[in-house]
Amino acid sequence: MALSNSSLKKLRQIVGKEHCTIEKEELVCYSYDATGKMYLPDAVIFPESSDDISAILKLANKERFFVIPRGAGSGMTGGSLPVQGGIVLVMKRLNRILEIDRDNLIARVQPGVVTGHFHEAVEKESLFYPPDPASSDFSTLGGNLAECAGGPRAVKYGVTRDYVLGLEAVLPTGDIIKTGVKTVKGVVGYDLTRLLVGSEGTLGIITDMTLRLLPLPESVSTITVIFDKMEAAAQTVSEIIRQGIIPRTIEYMDNASIRCTESYLKIGLPVDAGAMLIIEVDGKENETATEIEVLKSLCMHKGARDVKMAETNAERDDLWKARKAISPALYKYAPDKINEDIVVPRSRIPDMVVKIAELRERSGLTMATFGHAGDGNIHFNVMLDKKNRDELQKAEAAVLEVFEYTLELGGTISGEHGIGITKSSYIKKEIGETELFLMKQIKKVFDPNGILNPGKLFPAE
Amino acid sequence: MALSNSSLKKLRQIVGKEHCTIEKEELVCYSYDATGKMYLPDAVIFPESSDDISAILKLANKERFFVIPRGAGSGMTGGSLPVQGGIVLVMKRLNRILEIDRDNLIARVQPGVVTGHFHEAVEKESLFYPPDPASSDFSTLGGNLAECAGGPRAVKYGVTRDYVLGLEAVLPTGDIIKTGVKTVKGVVGYDLTRLLVGSEGTLGIITDMTLRLLPLPESVSTITVIFDKMEAAAQTVSEIIRQGIIPRTIEYMDNASIRCTESYLKIGLPVDAGAMLIIEVDGKENETATEIEVLKSLCMHKGARDVKMAETNAERDDLWKARKAISPALYKYAPDKINEDIVVPRSRIPDMVVKIAELRERSGLTMATFGHAGDGNIHFNVMLDKKNRDELQKAEAAVLEVFEYTLELGGTISGEHGIGITKSSYIKKEIGETELFLMKQIKKVFDPNGILNPGKLFPAE
Repeated sequence: MALSNSSLKKLRQIVGKEHCTIEKEELVCYSYDATGKMYLPDAVIFPESSDDISAILKLANKERFFVIPRGAGSGMTGGSLPVQGGIVLVMKRLNRILEIDRDNLIARVQPGVVTGHFHEAVEKESLFYPPDPASSDFSTLGGNLAECAGGPRAVKYGVTRDYVLGLEAVLPTGDIIKTGVKTVKGVVGYDLTRLLVGSEGTLGIITDMTLRLLPLPESVSTITVIFDKMEAAAQTVSEIIRQGIIPRTIEYMDNASIRCTESYLKIGLPVDAGAMLIIEVDGKENETATEIEVLKSLCMHKGARDVKMAETNAERDDLWKARKAISPALYKYAPDKINEDIVVPRSRIPDMVVKIAELRERSGLTMATFGHAGDGNIHFNVMLDKKNRDELQKAEAAVLEVFEYTLELGGTISGEHGIGITKSSYIKKEIGETELFLMKQIKKVFDPNGILNPGKLFPAE
Repeated sequence: MALSNSSLKKLRQIVGKEHCTIEKEELVCYSYDATGKMYLPDAVIFPESSDDISAILKLANKERFFVIPRGAGSGMTGGSLPVQGGIVLVMKRLNRILEIDRDNLIARVQPGVVTGHFHEAVEKESLFYPPDPASSDFSTLGGNLAECAGGPRAVKYGVTRDYVLGLEAVLPTGDIIKTGVKTVKGVVGYDLTRLLVGSEGTLGIITDMTLRLLPLPESVSTITVIFDKMEAAAQTVSEIIRQGIIPRTIEYMDNASIRCTESYLKIGLPVDAGAMLIIEVDGKENETATEIEVLKSLCMHKGARDVKMAETNAERDDLWKARKAISPALYKYAPDKINEDIVVPRSRIPDMVVKIAELRERSGLTMATFGHAGDGNIHFNVMLDKKNRDELQKAEAAVLEVFEYTLELGGTISGEHGIGITKSSYIKKEIGETELFLMKQIKKVFDPNGILNPGKLFPAE
């Protein structure tokens, strides 16, 4: 299904010559994502509207070429990569915030808006959009919806799907649909909105979204808690929730993550600590102050070595800079990284910590874990040189063992990164045959000719 | 597709003779719901397990009879009625709370558990399950999930779909599937969980559910606010949200609802008031006290005649008894009721109030409105004698006008009651042709022979 010259000509008629390119140096820019994998597209196209996208998809159905939607290309599982060729459809021109409605606590936004810009815009109006993946400085809302992004605040506020009320989307057939409502309630027909959210760009291309907002919390307080042992940190997380306290974030970094991030940023992280928690609470000023006191004493009681409050915004920003820098910083240890995104019921984090320590010991590989301890979402990273066959084998065996243990503990193999191409060979470990068959049939309903984002999510037959 | 004697025999083999009946007096008990409509089933069956249900559905596919799942039969749109005959499958034997897990804030529950019983059970453990439809004293969790029930607390806490993490369900084909996860995060494959939630028992029969819980708020405070004019009450609701306060409920009753409920319960409601709000806040003791003070002065400032705090639990219970009694109490006005369930963006409630006043004037019919003002969800009731053709015509015209105006204001024609049979002829007003086609195709994927809950949701062809 290579792109014919005549198709290319028609694509250029749809979006204008300057918005469709086949120049090698441009193709390269849209050939990779955060997995480090590269697949060159046949062309890259920059539509301006849902009508453009509709025309492109109609053409793709007629002339049978693949279309791969792309936000910022910050995905962790290859969702935006043209693995079977085709045209990459970049959403960056649909980048307007159409409406922020204070009275009804909603916003209407185009998919190309950068998540961090949207945060700033709503916060200026004293409003709050909780989902905040670590990539929020550059990832786009369209990509966030396609993957159902999570982030640190999910422990209190839930994930992306909990903030999507309605959508406009272009189906693979080129039909433009509207789903959902503008209100919290709405039960007319099947929930197509949440079927599109998290479908990894395989069921339709989102072109307009109505998002739910909250009032901006009056105050946020942040503490870091240092532990000698990872196990004690993990047990503290469970105890916090057991006490009925739901901080807005409970992030953790293990020793490998701390050391590596410190050597990259040099902001004085405790490199000898077994683990560090970053706990953040929000609410009214007096409430957060009280909660922080309760948390401090609870953490000390559970064996913390030190609890430190971020006293200024700059200190707080440094902490989050550190937290967000872990993933890239890890490349210090080795040229390659296998980055997994498991979730276990939070009371089972201590079990998983023990398991990973054992695997580290056994394999001799550097393994760093960090993530969203509050909701049991652990980013498990194995550092290696993929050219070293022995390391690669050991790493893959370790990942498989972690996945199997995750499922044994009642967890899931992907909390927020999706399946894409990197996990599709594992999906059958979690999803049964009948369930997978249903999903494939749904894909066929939406995309009878299989032209949208092929080779993703489903395992190769 | 009448039920054959041989099918009946096989059904009795599956569940045991005592759990399958064709006695007329029993059939009658399962022939109606809260719509007041009646359709006699061919048989009523009481399965004990998902295996029973699987066997029943496999038989239904083979011998082609209809199966209609039923919880407590408290639905408002006919979702559990055997409108084309077939067997009614009553879920009451699957009524166990399997697990309440404090550490992970989840519960595993069977669908036949009464919602109110579940509330009591989790509250005993200092946990909280927010969804609370007015019918919670008798409706079941299975029915709540099938309809995606809402209730008063949705303004702060969202609706049923926001609390469902994972499901076991029996497909119309008899296959048993598992969907979703036990954690807040989880993005493996398409969101079948939320596709089943709100599908009104047309895509599968839920047999086991994993629900998300919250810590029980420390304190709840309730005030009633009396207004001379409905318009002022509606504007007050908008102002509360604009101030960044999200009470857990903002309920309202108009004059007709107040008068009628008072004459039924005799608890001292202000029968001359234009409208009454019931506002409830929850949180830590000192927070709720502060918020109530802010709300009181805001309400007085916006023209309230009186603000009264419920000082005791008994007073609070009386208020909620009144609120929950409105729907049945309205039959005082006339033998029949058309009960609609619209939602408008909350800032547009004042417009809708004006519209309904005008319709009341024009038609001469008694119209009572009450509902969840905080999320724009208005229960619009027209009282009439359906045998009076003139009244019926006027009432139907008024409903149509309200639906059209609802959609004009950016709202939806069903917030929490679903479509069922009573609204299926209106669904095309809200849902486009392509969207409806997708939904029908999804139905076919799940239910190729169309044996599960036929005649619902989709308009007659």
